[in-house]
Amino acid sequence: MKLHETTKAVLFDVFGTCVDWRSGVARDVALAASKLSLAVDAHAFADAWRGRYQPAMEEVRSGRRPWTILDVLHRESLDALLPKFGLGALDESARQDLNRAWHRLDPWPDVVPGLARLKTRYVIAPLSNGNVALLTNMAKRANMPWDLILGAETSSAYKPMPRAYLRAAEMLGLAPEQVMLAAAHNDDLRAARAVGLRTAFVPRPLEYGAGQKKDLAPSEAWDIVASDFGDLAVRLAA
Amino acid sequence: MKLHETTKAVLFDVFGTCVDWRSGVARDVALAASKLSLAVDAHAFADAWRGRYQPAMEEVRSGRRPWTILDVLHRESLDALLPKFGLGALDESARQDLNRAWHRLDPWPDVVPGLARLKTRYVIAPLSNGNVALLTNMAKRANMPWDLILGAETSSAYKPMPRAYLRAAEMLGLAPEQVMLAAAHNDDLRAARAVGLRTAFVPRPLEYGAGQKKDLAPSEAWDIVASDFGDLAVRLAA
Repeated sequence: MKLHETTKAVLFDVFGTCVDWRSGVARDVALAASKLSLAVDAHAFADAWRGRYQPAMEEVRSGRRPWTILDVLHRESLDALLPKFGLGALDESARQDLNRAWHRLDPWPDVVPGLARLKTRYVIAPLSNGNVALLTNMAKRANMPWDLILGAETSSAYKPMPRAYLRAAEMLGLAPEQVMLAAAHNDDLRAARAVGLRTAFVPRPLEYGAGQKKDLAPSEAWDIVASDFGDLAVRLAA
Repeated sequence: MKLHETTKAVLFDVFGTCVDWRSGVARDVALAASKLSLAVDAHAFADAWRGRYQPAMEEVRSGRRPWTILDVLHRESLDALLPKFGLGALDESARQDLNRAWHRLDPWPDVVPGLARLKTRYVIAPLSNGNVALLTNMAKRANMPWDLILGAETSSAYKPMPRAYLRAAEMLGLAPEQVMLAAAHNDDLRAARAVGLRTAFVPRPLEYGAGQKKDLAPSEAWDIVASDFGDLAVRLAA
């Protein structure tokens, strides 16, 4: 059986793989600063905010902290970073709005047309550490045509914990080998493969800007390596 | 503030409200019987199968039984009913297939166009006791354009338990009063209203066939009473 015959669902990492979080967050940080006539290195802010992402989730993964959604983790990181970047003057309303920058990220140009093609043959869904509301608002704004939203609350586990991948397959009524994860991050694919999912690597060499060093190439022989979501659709006969 | 300004998400009961379970199940029961050259009252079978729905869920709601998805409850009811209807000869493969009749139900004719209109203004999702795979497969087959699937596993609570409604609002990042439930069943709406959701009644007078006695009219002054999903869209300015 070929991969396009055995695969029933294609799930997608979101931050970096589907959407350009760095540009989107920097845009909204710059806007928030300009409203207060403040100067900020908006891309450095975006990188610093994203830099707190894994450590914040690790508190939850480790069990040191009870289940907490990403909107809350983002907000805590935001509050910690604002004074470091000279933006401590942002009021509560501005902070709430800026935290939702993560709900307003733009997809890479190939994403929406690629997903539309893949949807004709497969169940498609985000498999993300983002919470359901974040992913729903993002999809709605950007017309990402998901069949369903597998936000982190649906498994109460943050990737790369095995449960995040296995619970998604279970909820879809599928065996792990009937589910493919598409991601721009080798470590995400490694964790998915370890529990039996199929894997597709789609590099996003500009995720971290022009100087990106990581995830420029596949680190293992993933089931598929595709140049973008359109190429992924071709390789999956969609 | 008007209802169409305060409401951000419209959630839908599925069995009966969106899809004609009785005709769909009867169709597949008749087909399964015909393959074995057996005669069956297919509509009586559908009614009996559905008749075991609430008692089966009540075992879970009461805590007498751990969380169990509807596909499993349906299968147990099917196995119990087949011999009573002279269909005990169905083999495992035929039973698995017939159990998925619930994944292959057709929507009432107004549902897909009505949802497409509502989707332009609101987040739309099923809020159903069906499991995620069932609702996903149903939507995929029938082109129901949900933004996300709020299957029963996403709250691990069966309606009309309060948690089923409240957890849906919480996952959407919304207050209960920003969420509307649309249903053909007064008791579902009553439970939703009790925890603060807005309510829309859409009667489905043929859900139980020509002799239906229940839910022909609203039992309370629901926020909206609409003749079908198109009318619901009009009343919600979508």
